[in-house]
Amino acid sequence: MATLTVPSSVPAVAEDCEQLHKAFEGWGTNEELIISILAHRNAAQRRAIRRAYADVYGKELLRALGDEIHGKFERAVILWTLDPAERDAVLANEEAKKWHPGGRALVEIACARTPAQLFAAKQAYHDRFKRSLEEDVAAHVTGDFRKLLVPLVSAYRYDGPEVNTSLAHSEAKILHEKIDKKAYSDEEIIRILTTRSKAQLLATFNSYKDQFGHAINKDLKADPKDEFLATLRAIIRCFTCPDRYFEKLIRLALGGVGTDEDALTRVITTRAEVDLKLIKEAYQKRNSVPLERAVAKDTTRDYEDILLALLGAE
Amino acid sequence: MATLTVPSSVPAVAEDCEQLHKAFEGWGTNEELIISILAHRNAAQRRAIRRAYADVYGKELLRALGDEIHGKFERAVILWTLDPAERDAVLANEEAKKWHPGGRALVEIACARTPAQLFAAKQAYHDRFKRSLEEDVAAHVTGDFRKLLVPLVSAYRYDGPEVNTSLAHSEAKILHEKIDKKAYSDEEIIRILTTRSKAQLLATFNSYKDQFGHAINKDLKADPKDEFLATLRAIIRCFTCPDRYFEKLIRLALGGVGTDEDALTRVITTRAEVDLKLIKEAYQKRNSVPLERAVAKDTTRDYEDILLALLGAE
Repeated sequence: MATLTVPSSVPAVAEDCEQLHKAFEGWGTNEELIISILAHRNAAQRRAIRRAYADVYGKELLRALGDEIHGKFERAVILWTLDPAERDAVLANEEAKKWHPGGRALVEIACARTPAQLFAAKQAYHDRFKRSLEEDVAAHVTGDFRKLLVPLVSAYRYDGPEVNTSLAHSEAKILHEKIDKKAYSDEEIIRILTTRSKAQLLATFNSYKDQFGHAINKDLKADPKDEFLATLRAIIRCFTCPDRYFEKLIRLALGGVGTDEDALTRVITTRAEVDLKLIKEAYQKRNSVPLERAVAKDTTRDYEDILLALLGAE
Repeated sequence: MATLTVPSSVPAVAEDCEQLHKAFEGWGTNEELIISILAHRNAAQRRAIRRAYADVYGKELLRALGDEIHGKFERAVILWTLDPAERDAVLANEEAKKWHPGGRALVEIACARTPAQLFAAKQAYHDRFKRSLEEDVAAHVTGDFRKLLVPLVSAYRYDGPEVNTSLAHSEAKILHEKIDKKAYSDEEIIRILTTRSKAQLLATFNSYKDQFGHAINKDLKADPKDEFLATLRAIIRCFTCPDRYFEKLIRLALGGVGTDEDALTRVITTRAEVDLKLIKEAYQKRNSVPLERAVAKDTTRDYEDILLALLGAE
């Protein structure tokens, strides 16, 4: 379900490095060449290229890229080239430091990754920032959002398929009771959403629907402008339907006055190797337009080119 | 600083298994033989013995032990034989399920292990219980203790030596301000204690002493009977002076009316391969009696024998 396309015969790592080095040489930069290599290598291949490049040329590839390219294009190339765990660490750190209630990177990293991937991001966070993700979130986020986001990024959830149906039933009741009283930041809501396994939560949300006749997210829309409620809904959607969650994010990123490049770049770079094909299908279905066409309409030049390459455009 | 003694030439794993199997055969059990093997093998060696025993005899070694031995002796042998991470998972699960304010196993596992060891215990918890440690603690513990213990077992702390001294200064101030107002379960106290790295916390406690003239634990003794305060002090002592923390635990376990075998067994089995030598030294220094002698006085038979073996008694 990835959109990443890797050539059937991949050049040797040394050859890729040499080509990249060529792309940086002389007057101007050969952006096309950069895209033709990096946007068509998987995480392990990009890692090998980074390692070999530093060995041969005595300079980090990411630094060399940063010296040559700029702006939105640079950000897309750098985020994409990073290892998934490192990329998550960078995104989480940026959001934690300048946190605002509409931020979604932390929610996505905590809920749209496996528990093992979230843990790998936390290890990468240690290596890169010499601090922990949880301490930065706890230090910068405030109020109800802190009560929610610190446990959300902290818990190492169980990842197995086992479900306790009577627990799902009783916890659906607890959720309904609290939501009914508009006690959205109640400890019990936070406890359930931040500690239960994905399989258990899906069973709980199903039981909620069965018992009360609405999807839980319907009941969490009481005030559409409330950012805390929007965050709760994002958490639930990242668990229940990540493809439609990301489709909507892209739709809003492309749909407004101006384009939200930050969101667009984040979704495409973090999902191209995961489920961007499903997101594309959801987009086409919802908007009757291929996602590639919508992206091409709202972006230009090298930035457009790398996004389209990652989207698997022919 | 471990007390575990392993013979200079260790028998082959197959030989150990055969001897253990012999100890179980016929009338009665050869407890001495069990101790002479298991109490003198390190974690990797015990793991190899467990694996080989199951292969050769078609029965888990721990199950075979459970069929042969009983009571306090069984508990000590089983806890000791487990892998450290698995042992922590078992101890954490027991305490989470029947949680009471005087429980210390969760605090020890969260604060007297490295972050990597705590994470290994959480992985072992998943494997063994098909749930997460954090969800069990969150579901069973209540009130202020939940607010404290859930983040305590959840956070993946940074483990490096870097210290931010101005942060230590300002967070010492925050701690003092909250303690001064007796706001012991304040979010900020919990945030600092549960997310900062060990090195950072040590700097913060030092700064506290420098700024306010008392060790923080002195100021947390306002009400010596308050179990929440006692838990905060235990957390701080597990970071600052684990040997003296465990010395005191053993002293109280041996000192009361009757012996607290649970605490005694837990400390000896979890520390024998870590720092039990330091704990013994602290005990001798504080009580003017060798720990082996105090343990021998309060325990009997096979239970005494395995504890003394793990204490490194000649």
